[in-house]
Order: sequence, then C-alpha cells, then structure tokens
Amino acid sequence: MPMPQPQPAFVLIRPQMGENIGAAARGMWNFGLDRMRVIAPRDGWPNQRAVAMASGAGRLLDEAQLFEDTAAAIADCDFVYATTARPRGLTKPVLSPEAAMQDAHARIAAGGKVAVMFGPERAGMENDDIARANAIISVPVNPDFPSLNLAQCVLLLGYEWRRVATEVVPLRHDAPGDWATQIEIEKLADHYQDRLDAAGFFFPDHKAANMQMNLRNLWSRMPLTRADVQMLHGILRQMVRWKDRG
Amino acid sequence: MPMPQPQPAFVLIRPQMGENIGAAARGMWNFGLDRMRVIAPRDGWPNQRAVAMASGAGRLLDEAQLFEDTAAAIADCDFVYATTARPRGLTKPVLSPEAAMQDAHARIAAGGKVAVMFGPERAGMENDDIARANAIISVPVNPDFPSLNLAQCVLLLGYEWRRVATEVVPLRHDAPGDWATQIEIEKLADHYQDRLDAAGFFFPDHKAANMQMNLRNLWSRMPLTRADVQMLHGILRQMVRWKDRG
Repeated sequence: MPMPQPQPAFVLIRPQMGENIGAAARGMWNFGLDRMRVIAPRDGWPNQRAVAMASGAGRLLDEAQLFEDTAAAIADCDFVYATTARPRGLTKPVLSPEAAMQDAHARIAAGGKVAVMFGPERAGMENDDIARANAIISVPVNPDFPSLNLAQCVLLLGYEWRRVATEVVPLRHDAPGDWATQIEIEKLADHYQDRLDAAGFFFPDHKAANMQMNLRNLWSRMPLTRADVQMLHGILRQMVRWKDRG
Repeated sequence: MPMPQPQPAFVLIRPQMGENIGAAARGMWNFGLDRMRVIAPRDGWPNQRAVAMASGAGRLLDEAQLFEDTAAAIADCDFVYATTARPRGLTKPVLSPEAAMQDAHARIAAGGKVAVMFGPERAGMENDDIARANAIISVPVNPDFPSLNLAQCVLLLGYEWRRVATEVVPLRHDAPGDWATQIEIEKLADHYQDRLDAAGFFFPDHKAANMQMNLRNLWSRMPLTRADVQMLHGILRQMVRWKDRG
C-alpha cells in the first residue's frame, strides 16, 4: 500500500439520490481523490444505488466517513471551502475553483487539513453550513443556465485539484503557522454565543437567529491562530468575571 | 437577439444514448456554449430522451446541426481538436484542456473556425476520426480510473473554454466589500483595550504591554468589514451593560 497523497476531503452535505453519491465518487476517483465524507444521507448508509453507480470507484464509498452534522464532519479541518453558486448575504472570500485548489494545495503542503463541502442536490447549501466555511468556491457558470449538479461540481473541483497538484505550485502560506482547527473555531463560536445570549445581546428575538449566524460567520472567516482563539476566549472569560465581581 | 460570441463548435461523433446527448447539451450551455454538431446519432434525430435530459438547454438540440460523417461535420473548420484519452499510435500534438482552449481562443480571435470532437460513449474515438484532427486533447485523469463519460468530457472542455474566454479573476470578494478603514480598526482596538484594562485582563503587569500589542495585532490582521467592526463594538458594549446591571 503506497503512502496516500495528502489531499482535501470532499464532504457531501445531506445528499439525496444514491446515484449522485455514486457519480460523485466516480468524479473524485477520476482525478485521484479518494477521501469522501458524507453527512446524513437522505436514504441511509450504505446506499445500494450509490454502489451501483460508483462501479470502479466503489472503494470510496466503502471507506467514506459518515457524520451526523456539518460541525462534526469538518471538526478536524483547519480550512474549509463551501461550493455554492449563491453566497447569500454572507461576507466571505469567493474563489474560483482554480484559485481555491491552488490555495488548498499550498495549505496541505504546509501541513494543513482541508475540506471542500458540497450542498444537497435540490436546495443547495444552507447558510448555516456556509457560515462554517472559511471561503466560498464559485464555479464561473453561464448566469443564464447555472444549474450544475452535485456530481458535476465534484468533477470540476477534482479536475482542478489534479491540475494544481500535478503542477509545481509555489508555496504561499508561511510555515505551518499554528492555525486553529475547525473544532476550535466551533467551540469559540459556541462560547461567544452562549455568553452573549446570557448577556441579552441577541435582541430582538426575531433577529436573534440571523445575528447568531453572522457572528458565527465572523469567526470562521477570520484567519485565526490557536493563540488568537485563546485570547478571544480569555477576553470573554474576563468580561464575565468582571460582571460576577459586580 | 445579441450577436453570438465567437466560439468553438462541439461535435458529437455517433453518440449512442439520447441521455448523454442531452447531458452534453446541458454541459455546454452551463458554460455558455451553444453550437452543437451531431454526427449519425445511433437512435436517429430528433431524440426524445435527449430532449428530456437537456431541459433548460433544449434549444441547443433544436439548433444542432446534423451530419452523416465526420468529414462533412468539420468541413468548414480550419482547426479541429479530438478529445481522447488514448492517442493510439498517431503522432499529433497532445494538449491539456486548458492549453487547447487557450489555443482555440487565440485562433477564434484571429478569425478561425474551430471544432472540438467527442467520440461515441463506449468505443471512444476511432483512428479514422482522430486522423482528421489537428491536435489531441487529453484530460489529465487518474490512470487507474480514466473512465470519463461523454457528458463529463464535454463539461470539462466547456469549463476550460469559459475560463479562458472570460479570463476569470482568481480572487474577488463578495459584495459589498465594505472594508473597515484603518481608523475604524484603531478605534475598535482602543475600545477593547480600555474595557479590558478596566476588567483587569492585562495581568500580570509585566506582561500587559505585550498582551496589548498582541490584541491590537489581532484586530489589524483580520479582514474586517464595517459590519464586523460594529458587531465587535456591540459585543463589548453588551458585556459592559450586563456587568452594570449587576
């Protein structure tokens, strides 16, 4: 067994049709990618239609990691891309597939763990999931006919990954840089959300969900190191202590 | 009706399944290509399965040009590419999809007529057809799993055409791009420093200066929008209010 090449994980969020999961596995393996993660597939797991469609790429389904939610699926990653045609009102860097895979390659070469998320077929990705991503990948489709399906989107990203990975790409990220992992960002976001909720920050009620999403999006957009995350936790803890001292 | 953009014709040689012809039409129109030529489709023409699959790209099938053989289909073209994974013993230039579409773009810009040929699903392109091409396009697939289908191959070439033809800007930022100014970052840093100082955060004394510098550095390193800065001010104000309420 050869050492696996470092590569991004491709994460399918709540995929619906088994055929599409199988076609996505084929599209990945066409370009040498074999780390699939699947979040809450509609029709359960394993999925026989996925297996039938995957044919020569069936191994990817056997080895796919199954998760219950997005937070768990990307917990070990320190940089996550969301593929979506419509960044609806969330401020995030938007990258072309090429730029994103160049960026991913540089991060992986520097020791990073990277994931690319794909939304469910019909609805596309929800803002809650997009908010967890560090950057958005937008495929430059014809605006009059932008309807790429899941497997096509996976295919294009796989293609760009291979194109980039088989070229010599200059390393753009300084050192390993001790970046916070996704789970650390998630915990930071939870910490702020809990305390600010107690403090009455999310007001009025009908705006609370949106405020919470924007705040979560803020943390995941920021290039935070572990030390930054520690400081941000520390700030909040100190404010609470100050309050408690009265 | 706007003037059509000059573009390559995509030529499907003896396609078998109507579904694949429809999916190819979709893949072309996803990237703004709409000149399809079809040579001797197995199941005749028009093909209802193709129409059903094409959905929003049905116009391409209505307007597709039908030919009896390859020579007739490319008679008016002055440069022709053959997409094939296996250049079998024919000496020809072999180009990546990207290089081929760059080349095609330059030829078209200079007034040339260009076609890209795709072979039938199962057999792939015959040597007789490949021999009519000026160059070969080879998609850099995983040699252990090179099985791209017709529609996938069309999709990838369409994608590369659009990438080249629109000269995609690699990185843009999602609207409104309302970045905070330096003075706003400065005021944010001051606000946090003042309040955290009052809260006793910068402790012990001999570390205070360094902690303050790290915190200031954190804000200035982050890609903050005006809205982010407002939210970060708001968080701090709310924590202070919480304290004051006791």
